[in-house]
Amino acid sequence: MQDSFLFIIEMIGTAAFAVSGIRLAAGKRFDWFGAYTVGLVTAIGGGTLRDVLLDIPVFWMQDGWYLGVTALCLVAVIVFRSFLVSRDKLLFLFDSIGLALFCVIGIEKSLSIGYPMWVAAVMGIITGAFGGVLRDILINEAPLIFRTDLYATACLAGAMVYWIVLLAGGTTVAQGLSCAATVILLRYVTLKFNLSLPVLGTPPSDRFPDSRK
Amino acid sequence: MQDSFLFIIEMIGTAAFAVSGIRLAAGKRFDWFGAYTVGLVTAIGGGTLRDVLLDIPVFWMQDGWYLGVTALCLVAVIVFRSFLVSRDKLLFLFDSIGLALFCVIGIEKSLSIGYPMWVAAVMGIITGAFGGVLRDILINEAPLIFRTDLYATACLAGAMVYWIVLLAGGTTVAQGLSCAATVILLRYVTLKFNLSLPVLGTPPSDRFPDSRK
Amino acid sequence: MQDSFLFIIEMIGTAAFAVSGIRLAAGKRFDWFGAYTVGLVTAIGGGTLRDVLLDIPVFWMQDGWYLGVTALCLVAVIVFRSFLVSRDKLLFLFDSIGLALFCVIGIEKSLSIGYPMWVAAVMGIITGAFGGVLRDILINEAPLIFRTDLYATACLAGAMVYWIVLLAGGTTVAQGLSCAATVILLRYVTLKFNLSLPVLGTPPSDRFPDSRK
Repeated sequence: MQDSFLFIIEMIGTAAFAVSGIRLAAGKRFDWFGAYTVGLVTAIGGGTLRDVLLDIPVFWMQDGWYLGVTALCLVAVIVFRSFLVSRDKLLFLFDSIGLALFCVIGIEKSLSIGYPMWVAAVMGIITGAFGGVLRDILINEAPLIFRTDLYATACLAGAMVYWIVLLAGGTTVAQGLSCAATVILLRYVTLKFNLSLPVLGTPPSDRFPDSRK
Repeated sequence: MQDSFLFIIEMIGTAAFAVSGIRLAAGKRFDWFGAYTVGLVTAIGGGTLRDVLLDIPVFWMQDGWYLGVTALCLVAVIVFRSFLVSRDKLLFLFDSIGLALFCVIGIEKSLSIGYPMWVAAVMGIITGAFGGVLRDILINEAPLIFRTDLYATACLAGAMVYWIVLLAGGTTVAQGLSCAATVILLRYVTLKFNLSLPVLGTPPSDRFPDSRK
Repeated sequence: MQDSFLFIIEMIGTAAFAVSGIRLAAGKRFDWFGAYTVGLVTAIGGGTLRDVLLDIPVFWMQDGWYLGVTALCLVAVIVFRSFLVSRDKLLFLFDSIGLALFCVIGIEKSLSIGYPMWVAAVMGIITGAFGGVLRDILINEAPLIFRTDLYATACLAGAMVYWIVLLAGGTTVAQGLSCAATVILLRYVTLKFNLSLPVLGTPPSDRFPDSRK
């Protein structure tokens, strides 16, 4: 029962991530295959890197649902495009829920095979945010999350809350829920008040100060 | 005897992929090392990702031929450039043969360690097409295969034919040959009739509809 | 005692690589998180790919120092930016020392688990140079090392010297020191005399001769 609930949430997150990738690929005039690939990489890229780094079986190769949901998303974007274009708030909600759950999954997978909390926190961030980085590399843009919002920072804050509840002796469910709530809340506050991290700017005369040259 | 034949085909495919990467790197004015790296990544990138995802030893680390053939290709491009430039049809043929064989290798490696056919199909596509994606990322272009032809789609069709022959009770050789023939035929038809997948376009006012912002 | 010395050298190299990434990210106006990520990927990206290809535990997940040093570098760049901007020569020295040590580490890790010398040489190059490639992909530039200097070539030369000393019966320390000295010397000579590899150019009419189209 609890597992089915988590599975549905995970598929909602997968779909939200996939739609994000498919829509950006459409903006670049990719073909259907390209849009599907970008959507898939957005949805499963973070978890794939996590599983490769943890040296455990890659999750989407054990279960065909991830590829199937992405295919449904492609069909949905093709058929209902004008509908989806006007549903940014709904997609933002799904995306935030997905991010929160992906972050919790990344943390729990890492802890369950014996890694310390700081590695788990990194894996939570990678699971949540790296798919979007890969998406932006594929469409040949400088990654958005490095410039525009608190996407990964929300994961980091969620991981810290997870840790605090862990140290305070909370149950696994309490850890996961508090982490997810933190991520979703921070995403909402970020949007509401248009927050962002400080930019690490440089004067124009110092634009490419590569020490390696 | 059969193994030697397959090995020669594989080296022809490796060379065709490497030359493709080296020529594009030359167009970007990379130095020799850069051109070699791009050629190598084009040739072995797909198989490397496959082996990492399958968690098996990476193929080119077991056998020095792949690096050697790529080095020969670099020398050939430097020495015989004007010759190679006018041999696009020959390179297209080699490239299609390589793609077909790489696809078959990816499918068979995955099936041999117990993965189901749908994972094998994905691995066939990755083995054939991902090297070109990495090549385009290294030369900082949006990946060509997402926009211009049926490269990966040919692998997908080949994998489906492989599956059908498998279900129909064909031998391993029949599975591989029918898959390879499908890929090569589709590549030829694509070129002949200038086919492409539909583009997933959007009106200009919706160019960056990122739900994550 | 010797281990502490090597550890300090490794942290100096990590810091030099991280600062290189953070400064380039600053030039692209990334936020703090983005700059930290680019710095971290520059510092640990090469070793991470090496460990994934060798299928051994990823080094930075066993020891928190790498993430910590990168965080200190970010703070240093924010606080002392004008100081660091005028210290290009010092950073170049640190960067060369780091490159040399990273190259030696990559070679020795590969040899210690039974790979032949040619694989170890590739792993030395990857450990030293691949972080910079990932950095340039993240900031959406065509990788610098493919166009401007002898960065990876210095690693290759170092690996060859390592091999010669190995064949000549030198001790492990002699192998490592001669390899590191070669890398540092070549980097210095490259800078001093402004050397570079030949460019693999093509006439303008042949700019995108992709055999795959």
